[in-house]
Amino acid sequence: MPIPDSFLQRLQGVVGPKRFSTGISNLTLHSKDESFHAPHLPDAVAWPKSTGEVSQLVRICNEGKIPVTPWGAGTSLEGNPIPVKGGLVIDLQQMNKILEIREDDLQVDVQAGVVFKDLNKKLKQYGLFFPPDPGASATIGGMVANNASGIRAIKYGATKDLIQQLTVVLADGEIIRPGTLSFKTSSGLDLCRLFAGSEGILGIITEITLRLTGIPPEFLSAVVSFATAKEASSTISQIIRSGLSPAALEFIGKDAVRLINKYTEEFNFPEAPLVFVEFHGTNREGMAADLELVREICEENGASRFEAGIGRQARAKLWDARYNLHDFILREYPGLEPMAIDTAVPISKLPKIVAFAEELCKERGIIGYIFGHAGSGNIHMPMMGNPNDKATWAVLEEINHKLVAFAISLGGTATGEHGVGIGKMQYMELEHGNSLKVMKKIKKLLDPRGILNPGKMF
Amino acid sequence: MPIPDSFLQRLQGVVGPKRFSTGISNLTLHSKDESFHAPHLPDAVAWPKSTGEVSQLVRICNEGKIPVTPWGAGTSLEGNPIPVKGGLVIDLQQMNKILEIREDDLQVDVQAGVVFKDLNKKLKQYGLFFPPDPGASATIGGMVANNASGIRAIKYGATKDLIQQLTVVLADGEIIRPGTLSFKTSSGLDLCRLFAGSEGILGIITEITLRLTGIPPEFLSAVVSFATAKEASSTISQIIRSGLSPAALEFIGKDAVRLINKYTEEFNFPEAPLVFVEFHGTNREGMAADLELVREICEENGASRFEAGIGRQARAKLWDARYNLHDFILREYPGLEPMAIDTAVPISKLPKIVAFAEELCKERGIIGYIFGHAGSGNIHMPMMGNPNDKATWAVLEEINHKLVAFAISLGGTATGEHGVGIGKMQYMELEHGNSLKVMKKIKKLLDPRGILNPGKMF
Repeated sequence: MPIPDSFLQRLQGVVGPKRFSTGISNLTLHSKDESFHAPHLPDAVAWPKSTGEVSQLVRICNEGKIPVTPWGAGTSLEGNPIPVKGGLVIDLQQMNKILEIREDDLQVDVQAGVVFKDLNKKLKQYGLFFPPDPGASATIGGMVANNASGIRAIKYGATKDLIQQLTVVLADGEIIRPGTLSFKTSSGLDLCRLFAGSEGILGIITEITLRLTGIPPEFLSAVVSFATAKEASSTISQIIRSGLSPAALEFIGKDAVRLINKYTEEFNFPEAPLVFVEFHGTNREGMAADLELVREICEENGASRFEAGIGRQARAKLWDARYNLHDFILREYPGLEPMAIDTAVPISKLPKIVAFAEELCKERGIIGYIFGHAGSGNIHMPMMGNPNDKATWAVLEEINHKLVAFAISLGGTATGEHGVGIGKMQYMELEHGNSLKVMKKIKKLLDPRGILNPGKMF
Repeated sequence: MPIPDSFLQRLQGVVGPKRFSTGISNLTLHSKDESFHAPHLPDAVAWPKSTGEVSQLVRICNEGKIPVTPWGAGTSLEGNPIPVKGGLVIDLQQMNKILEIREDDLQVDVQAGVVFKDLNKKLKQYGLFFPPDPGASATIGGMVANNASGIRAIKYGATKDLIQQLTVVLADGEIIRPGTLSFKTSSGLDLCRLFAGSEGILGIITEITLRLTGIPPEFLSAVVSFATAKEASSTISQIIRSGLSPAALEFIGKDAVRLINKYTEEFNFPEAPLVFVEFHGTNREGMAADLELVREICEENGASRFEAGIGRQARAKLWDARYNLHDFILREYPGLEPMAIDTAVPISKLPKIVAFAEELCKERGIIGYIFGHAGSGNIHMPMMGNPNDKATWAVLEEINHKLVAFAISLGGTATGEHGVGIGKMQYMELEHGNSLKVMKKIKKLLDPRGILNPGKMF
């Protein structure tokens, strides 16, 4: 049901005509994220500039039972912000102020629309940074809503672990500020971590106080090649087990390595599974000793090549290549679309899931680019296909399904960092069992009219 | 209202007569924790051995609207497990099995009644440990319910940060298992962190899967004396700000130092505020360089004495002394009882709250022993008094109140690690504002008959 005119007028009245649109180009821009999920147009888009405006918008939508979907940068990979029931999209990108940097407390207050790359650029002059890095140009609000993590979660934690305080607009328009500015607390129920990762279905997060980290003065990286994915993933599992604390520990499958060689000028790796490992710290000698331990573990596992002593510039290029991998895959297959798999397992199960993924692809004749934040058990596998080629697309869907179900059977999760959105809804019961009933009850409690990002999570 | 006989019989039927008691000595043992809060007898105590038995007990209590209070080791400091409404105490100390150690995943499954010291003793042979350490002989279940943290939270996180999965008995007896064995997840609402720290008011936690850490091969500690508490606390704030990552950073006020000198044979510190700092790592040289940086910061802040190079044995004694501080205080005042203050502030506010506490005590002529996990902004201050001396006790209460209110006004929290229990209920509105309404709604949702640890938190 489209938004009635009287409500459209009231909603527009909140933000004014310049920050409100029902024009098709704006609706189209807010109809899809970066996933393979089908787009759906909202009825209207509003660009509030304050928590107060968000509150007014949500209050009106609640009155009219109008679906409300919050929007960050639209970089999600599971359809998380697609307004599948139409209604109003609240685009938070104009709430992009860094409100206060309290360097002595290692904290920053931001509006939800701040892009995390802009935040880290600004924080650099204070010698600080916010560690989670989803790769894409996500907003902090989107990262909080999806509990984004990325390559450095293994050392610094995911977004959820670094939230001090939130400002949240509830379904009835009420504004709450759960959390504390203290590092430690045992006070009351942890609402921050209930709203974080809730993908907008419980409330709209408009401001966030994040805990920051000092930029480590020293980095030390190594790139290691292995003959097989099994050897590479076993090595990763053993590095974690050894008690070392790498800041990043990435796995890149053979096919993905081939694309890095092809699309970068700098690199010409052996066409074999790669492991990137990186340490952050204050003391180069200590880190070098840690890296030496890594070398021993790699060699015991049959590493064919161990390249350490990578300079600052080469390291930056290496991470660029890692981040651009998704783009390289798209460039390799013009006209095709990716179906990205995101799943995570306990670290000892990494070799199993990698082997399972490889076998599945081989069996079905599909090229799946396996890579991921393997040090935290998180595996991605984009597969390319034409959504209109129903037969092939069905095979991709089947592989996706089998891999996620296998991950859950290993004690893992349907999604390591992309969130549930549309794509992972079907696995919620398998993963959570009767805990799902409690989640649904909480949703119903906090959003009794079901207006907040409807059609998502469950 | 006492438990009706028919219900007593049914409850006893679940666990059998040997694990059920209405005898006064057992009731008395379960009427108080280690806090100054008034005891209250339950009507009965049951010692279940399995989650199934807990479920049956809770189901019967729910039917009869009988208050149920879960019990760990009774070492809480805010009256958290005092059965203020009578009813049934479920003592989980016979659920004390370490169910499975998965060393390759750095995980352990335990029953709630496992004592954390026993767990760490067992884990030692695997080279692993569970970092949070509340000092007292708490059970893991109690630590989860109160989000215990202790000295090492600054590096390794609090209990809540290290939970993979929980088994929880809900108010109606249903058993859920929220969480995942994967390190990373973005799947669904975070029920683990909702139940953790909920002090038994939302459900009874019976089993826990914890994330573990490899025992660091190297330790490096230093003890630093300062002329004033202001200098000591400013130094701590600057060490954190510098980007160093100590595993512990403790503050011990002048009066507490005096007691350590008096009650230990090993130590004879200058009678002045002390800072303990400790690093954990794999490489001694790197850690020594970090400690050198600490020394520079300390000297810039006027440290009068910097003692590094403490051996393994002296270090152990040092931590023993720190842990025994509470006992030393009790020994110093036979016949008096402690009122322990626990509060935490953003790290830059540490000098302010320490100065405020010192002034308050001076002004009112009370000896308060200030110390705490200052690196995480967490300050404790036990004060001694006779609860029957109403006038003095009222002064202690006033100081407690002023200090907590001041901490909250600085952006801090009413409780850093002891939990809300009875003692901090009065501050919940001040600290959480209208977020408290949401907490209360969730309580009502999950425990509609109000049987779970009633009279606590809010």
